[in-house]
Amino acid sequence: MFYHKKKLQFEAKPDAPNPLYANYIQELIGGQYGEMSVAMQYLFQGWSCRGEEKYRDMIMDVATEELGHVEMLATMVARLLEDAPVVQQEEVMKQDPMVQAILSGMNPQHAIVAGLGPRPADSVGNPWSGAYIIASGNLLADFRANLNAESQGRLQVARIYEMIEDQGVRDLLSVLLARDSYHQNLWMAAIKELEEKEGSILVPTTFPRDKERLDIAYDLYNFSDGEASKDGAWAKGEALDGQGEYKWVKTPKPEAKAPKLKPVSPRMYGTPDLPDQVGFMKE
Amino acid sequence: MFYHKKKLQFEAKPDAPNPLYANYIQELIGGQYGEMSVAMQYLFQGWSCRGEEKYRDMIMDVATEELGHVEMLATMVARLLEDAPVVQQEEVMKQDPMVQAILSGMNPQHAIVAGLGPRPADSVGNPWSGAYIIASGNLLADFRANLNAESQGRLQVARIYEMIEDQGVRDLLSVLLARDSYHQNLWMAAIKELEEKEGSILVPTTFPRDKERLDIAYDLYNFSDGEASKDGAWAKGEALDGQGEYKWVKTPKPEAKAPKLKPVSPRMYGTPDLPDQVGFMKE
Amino acid sequence: MFYHKKKLQFEAKPDAPNPLYANYIQELIGGQYGEMSVAMQYLFQGWSCRGEEKYRDMIMDVATEELGHVEMLATMVARLLEDAPVVQQEEVMKQDPMVQAILSGMNPQHAIVAGLGPRPADSVGNPWSGAYIIASGNLLADFRANLNAESQGRLQVARIYEMIEDQGVRDLLSVLLARDSYHQNLWMAAIKELEEKEGSILVPTTFPRDKERLDIAYDLYNFSDGEASKDGAWAKGEALDGQGEYKWVKTPKPEAKAPKLKPVSPRMYGTPDLPDQVGFMKE
Amino acid sequence: MFYHKKKLQFEAKPDAPNPLYANYIQELIGGQYGEMSVAMQYLFQGWSCRGEEKYRDMIMDVATEELGHVEMLATMVARLLEDAPVVQQEEVMKQDPMVQAILSGMNPQHAIVAGLGPRPADSVGNPWSGAYIIASGNLLADFRANLNAESQGRLQVARIYEMIEDQGVRDLLSVLLARDSYHQNLWMAAIKELEEKEGSILVPTTFPRDKERLDIAYDLYNFSDGEASKDGAWAKGEALDGQGEYKWVKTPKPEAKAPKLKPVSPRMYGTPDLPDQVGFMKE
Amino acid sequence: MFYHKKKLQFEAKPDAPNPLYANYIQELIGGQYGEMSVAMQYLFQGWSCRGEEKYRDMIMDVATEELGHVEMLATMVARLLEDAPVVQQEEVMKQDPMVQAILSGMNPQHAIVAGLGPRPADSVGNPWSGAYIIASGNLLADFRANLNAESQGRLQVARIYEMIEDQGVRDLLSVLLARDSYHQNLWMAAIKELEEKEGSILVPTTFPRDKERLDIAYDLYNFSDGEASKDGAWAKGEALDGQGEYKWVKTPKPEAKAPKLKPVSPRMYGTPDLPDQVGFMKE
Amino acid sequence: MFYHKKKLQFEAKPDAPNPLYANYIQELIGGQYGEMSVAMQYLFQGWSCRGEEKYRDMIMDVATEELGHVEMLATMVARLLEDAPVVQQEEVMKQDPMVQAILSGMNPQHAIVAGLGPRPADSVGNPWSGAYIIASGNLLADFRANLNAESQGRLQVARIYEMIEDQGVRDLLSVLLARDSYHQNLWMAAIKELEEKEGSILVPTTFPRDKERLDIAYDLYNFSDGEASKDGAWAKGEALDGQGEYKWVKTPKPEAKAPKLKPVSPRMYGTPDLPDQVGFMKE
Repeated sequence: MFYHKKKLQFEAKPDAPNPLYANYIQELIGGQYGEMSVAMQYLFQGWSCRGEEKYRDMIMDVATEELGHVEMLATMVARLLEDAPVVQQEEVMKQDPMVQAILSGMNPQHAIVAGLGPRPADSVGNPWSGAYIIASGNLLADFRANLNAESQGRLQVARIYEMIEDQGVRDLLSVLLARDSYHQNLWMAAIKELEEKEGSILVPTTFPRDKERLDIAYDLYNFSDGEASKDGAWAKGEALDGQGEYKWVKTPKPEAKAPKLKPVSPRMYGTPDLPDQVGFMKE
Repeated sequence: MFYHKKKLQFEAKPDAPNPLYANYIQELIGGQYGEMSVAMQYLFQGWSCRGEEKYRDMIMDVATEELGHVEMLATMVARLLEDAPVVQQEEVMKQDPMVQAILSGMNPQHAIVAGLGPRPADSVGNPWSGAYIIASGNLLADFRANLNAESQGRLQVARIYEMIEDQGVRDLLSVLLARDSYHQNLWMAAIKELEEKEGSILVPTTFPRDKERLDIAYDLYNFSDGEASKDGAWAKGEALDGQGEYKWVKTPKPEAKAPKLKPVSPRMYGTPDLPDQVGFMKE
Repeated sequence: MFYHKKKLQFEAKPDAPNPLYANYIQELIGGQYGEMSVAMQYLFQGWSCRGEEKYRDMIMDVATEELGHVEMLATMVARLLEDAPVVQQEEVMKQDPMVQAILSGMNPQHAIVAGLGPRPADSVGNPWSGAYIIASGNLLADFRANLNAESQGRLQVARIYEMIEDQGVRDLLSVLLARDSYHQNLWMAAIKELEEKEGSILVPTTFPRDKERLDIAYDLYNFSDGEASKDGAWAKGEALDGQGEYKWVKTPKPEAKAPKLKPVSPRMYGTPDLPDQVGFMKE
Repeated sequence: MFYHKKKLQFEAKPDAPNPLYANYIQELIGGQYGEMSVAMQYLFQGWSCRGEEKYRDMIMDVATEELGHVEMLATMVARLLEDAPVVQQEEVMKQDPMVQAILSGMNPQHAIVAGLGPRPADSVGNPWSGAYIIASGNLLADFRANLNAESQGRLQVARIYEMIEDQGVRDLLSVLLARDSYHQNLWMAAIKELEEKEGSILVPTTFPRDKERLDIAYDLYNFSDGEASKDGAWAKGEALDGQGEYKWVKTPKPEAKAPKLKPVSPRMYGTPDLPDQVGFMKE
Repeated sequence: MFYHKKKLQFEAKPDAPNPLYANYIQELIGGQYGEMSVAMQYLFQGWSCRGEEKYRDMIMDVATEELGHVEMLATMVARLLEDAPVVQQEEVMKQDPMVQAILSGMNPQHAIVAGLGPRPADSVGNPWSGAYIIASGNLLADFRANLNAESQGRLQVARIYEMIEDQGVRDLLSVLLARDSYHQNLWMAAIKELEEKEGSILVPTTFPRDKERLDIAYDLYNFSDGEASKDGAWAKGEALDGQGEYKWVKTPKPEAKAPKLKPVSPRMYGTPDLPDQVGFMKE
Repeated sequence: MFYHKKKLQFEAKPDAPNPLYANYIQELIGGQYGEMSVAMQYLFQGWSCRGEEKYRDMIMDVATEELGHVEMLATMVARLLEDAPVVQQEEVMKQDPMVQAILSGMNPQHAIVAGLGPRPADSVGNPWSGAYIIASGNLLADFRANLNAESQGRLQVARIYEMIEDQGVRDLLSVLLARDSYHQNLWMAAIKELEEKEGSILVPTTFPRDKERLDIAYDLYNFSDGEASKDGAWAKGEALDGQGEYKWVKTPKPEAKAPKLKPVSPRMYGTPDLPDQVGFMKE
């Protein structure tokens, strides 16, 4: 059950309208790693959470915060679109290259579909998709998904920070940068706690390891020529899980023969096995 | 540039055909965290890699391995579909509930579209999408994406391992479990190395922290009632980044007023600001 | 800015687990007219709202309520999946047709991807999409979208009510039915108010009618043979907008000639206009 | 069964080519509320129609008309793209900012994929999707969907009318504006007739109201702070359905406790319930 | 401009309702190679056609026919769904395995969303997509697309013919088989005519061949081990285009070095080039 | 099982960075007929191949080559994006229209999401989709799909060749043109061989023709007015399959009556059949 407070947690006012910036901000709203994604991902994780209460509580805290981030960014987009020169006047266009650049670079759906409001979509217009998110029922797996999302998210915010000059927009981005910093710190702490509690770093920690092919569980296969990959921490010494030694395998070998599939029923009309099969039903 | 070897790296033969199992395996081929996803994700990361050679080399090693995983799973699906009772005979159906269950649970596209072969899709039929993957140009961010992918992937393999009884399928799954174990060990080692080298755990590590709102960069906002979230490692003590103290904020407060958007040009035909605006163009 | 209360507004407990019912409920979570759609649609409408404060306030009231509906349904799905017979044991399957039916009809992602939790998807597995929603910046247009959404939504709930027998699920559905009733009543009242205030029923009400082709603005063209369509309220008498008479046009006539497109630059490599064009670049 | 007449019902000739306008028109062809959507929506409604003949006949009349609208818009796009400066010559580009703006704002698929023809997609390139449409088998529900579609459609046409200056394009838009006016008048008349005939305005009208939670069927829950929402027609007085009184509920209360989900089988590898569950399969 | 005739060109009546068959037929309506695809593909090709009138006329003839095919299949699905046992009664389910199989195998959207009508989607529920079709502006290219579509289409019809026993459905399928036969014959004839007229079989025929790398234009690169591929008609003798000799290249060699990408601006926050780059903005 | 060689088969270096060109190249990477499509299509065809070894071997040869094409194009995009003026400086923008055009025409995800690397998407940003490809288990059908893909592919490369001036990019395109030429030559040779071997040109060749409606298997129905279509090779003379005569049918006639659907159970809440049905459950 949710409540909404009209005030924004942080200010969302640009210094000046700018339809190109509005479009960049769309990536942070409806992109693969935008705020709709983290909000929905955390909500579904919270609603599915069967573990200790403190995890569900914390997940719902953050999920609810992220809903407010979507709101601030949506407000920002609406304001960046105000006074956009959507009405083309050819005289003006011919004289002012700046207006032309805006008209040709602006997202046409911002005007035609949304009447100068935000869209539930990314910076190239792909609608937000439920396929972006994960709630697996395994918190350690999902907290890694969350750490990734906050890492990609902060990276994208940092890039947009460089790509624009508007101080009002940057003020909001500096808030998002800080929150993404905290959320990275948060998911890392939660991951560390779960790894220690579950006594393993391999998700899922409860799968019995003797049922996997342990003889191949520490090998780096050198499938790309060049040997540079053997110099990494992943190729020698004790593995981080403490249960094996990394090994660099110069020339990976096949165990199995080339597969030869059996023909299927001719009623499936695959490529016929000539000459017997053609016309099999004619008789 | 790639070369293909016909032999499979590991065997992919079920004990018996089973169309329901074939459908489960589709999740591992074309699902959000299936092998097409990791193969394509690593390929794009490798092709975009501007960092040290050893990273690009290692990423391409693993990417190339994953292409072989798709191949083994595709072969497994083709074999699980052989002898599927696709041709419905009502007499048989009425007498044998097992055949009915298979006919009603089988993915119809396995027969109609693929002629008893694998599909580039997941277990409910969604086609694989480029929207599943990320290659950001920042290796630390992307290695976290990779650790997440291998965690979700191994979790799904473990579940399918429990959901089936076929020993031949389980043999292949035990290979995938081992490789996903290694790949978790691998990406964690690479992450650790990069975090140490870059001197920070916050992606992107090079963004100057004084440009973010540091005063709010360590707060957990208690947006969901209940106080269980304050008992986590994320809510007290030194933050993992070593630059602040976690803080639990019981009642998060808004900084900004409720936003009031300006009306936009009446030529956008938003809701009119009555009475002046109606008919503005009639004059 | 949002707050979350842990208690559910209404109870969401089934009498017994049932994976097929869980799948039906997915349509109400992540379908085209599910609760994710109305929640997101109303949020974006609220955030874009440039009109009178009472509209924005009301839209945000309802949007926030709908977030709680997603939560109740997600909880219901999680409970319907508990004790699902995901682990196939062939002995059992062969003897118990009920278990078979469940295994073959169950959504495989409920087990493999979500570990027996809800999915942000519909009943056939399509992920929820931002393409389902609209926030146009014109409230009269959007309230009609909302009335439609609540009508389709209540219709789907009523159907599922008939398709199941579980009293606990029906209790939650009877809540949704009531709320969808209210929301139909709500959007109709708001539509009526706006139509009166704006003095027109044609969205957008402010577009000057003399700029449309008024001579064809009241005709029903009989493009499908048979004359039954002329007996409707739409084919005779005064039009509802009060500005014309409906007319039934028995044989619609073309005004324009068949279009003949001009050839484009041969550098676009369309079908060549022989014989001159072939090899145009060879010289 | 359909027949095609080569002549266009209305003329579709721009005064001059303009690739930016061509892209705007794409929204009216393949957007969420474009002509492909209404054509396909009405066709599926007509084909599913189990009600009185006059409805099916009328729906098919309009569906067939809309196919002709797609044709006119597709023709318009083809003509707007003729003479597009697709061949980049750097000298020209450097000197003529107008050519640059066109080149950077033009939809690249118009040239590369379609050879200067129309695309089955919207103005940002999303392909048209069957997920845009509805045919529910309940005409009252669907006529509300249709009224919404024609409202959003006319709104978008009006916006594009303002965004361009080409008189030939505006002539076609003035046709579409008139037809969307009629179609709004049409669906409203049909809705009114059905509501009267079915004796209710709540879709589906036949669901027995005593099976919904009538005690909560007239409440507006004030989930967003601020009390402006209580001043609307939706918050006081007799409800439009004539069966209750609207009520504004200042502080909505939860009926149910916070949900506590049961753990599921450890074979699903969710987060383990420590310490018992870790390694459950090892024994 | 289109007209609709109410009579079906061919009969579409099943002997008996069958929800599983209804779902198979969905593949022929809204699948990648279903009738919506060919109808829409041909319409867009016709509308874009800049070539000789006879091509445009023929394309529109076939496009219009295909619209009638969608209609017949949609009617068939509606009839196959009549009397579907959508209302679950547990008593019945427990006793009648046939009812169970239907309930678990039936497409839930057929009941919940469409009220026992057809869906604009395929047999696993993916909505039809504009991404399935092509209209390139080059008729030879597109006729090859059409030949492919009619080949895949007839193959799918043939499979469904085998998968069902209902004579009424088979009667309609035998119509579709015949029409797909004709359409294969049709597109092949049109392809042959264009190839002869344009004097080449390589699309686009007008691209000057001296601008391609002719030295590598006839080589089969043996990238997969094993030499079976050298025994095909594609590996020796005169090429079908009459302008070269096929050649089988046993060991394809790289021409270029391994690529080494340049670092990009640190303001893009890629992986830093240590130690200089970290903190570049701090100064 | 695959191996990767670091060297590129052909060079992929532009003369100069150009973000607009980078975006065009995306169509060749992740478009409907881009290299990801042919690579994945051939891989799935190879993995499903149940026919003669030489076909599987050849398909895998070409599939593996195409993976290398994706690599070369991805490398090209990365290089075209180097030095892109992503950091907007308003002073510069105002003075240099060229910079503006680039900024407004550049794909924003190239900077924000990929850090100036390639995307698994097309030139308007649609992510690559498994729905683009086909592997039907019938080689003749699929080779026609392949011939189509190589025809559309070469057409798009030819167009981009004209749309750009960079010699380095053109050098790579001239390689792709040559390979697409060969692949057209290849699939045509394989098609010819299979048609001869199977003794028919109608896919699937093994379906017994007496089970289709042979009386309508050679007719062109004149559904679009005008008689130009009767002048084609498809409308007279012996059909290419050698088993019938093409026939042009001036006025196609319906065989069946207008369909009248039966009402379905009122529990589906379709439009009620008044007056009996309203309130059916109230008693």
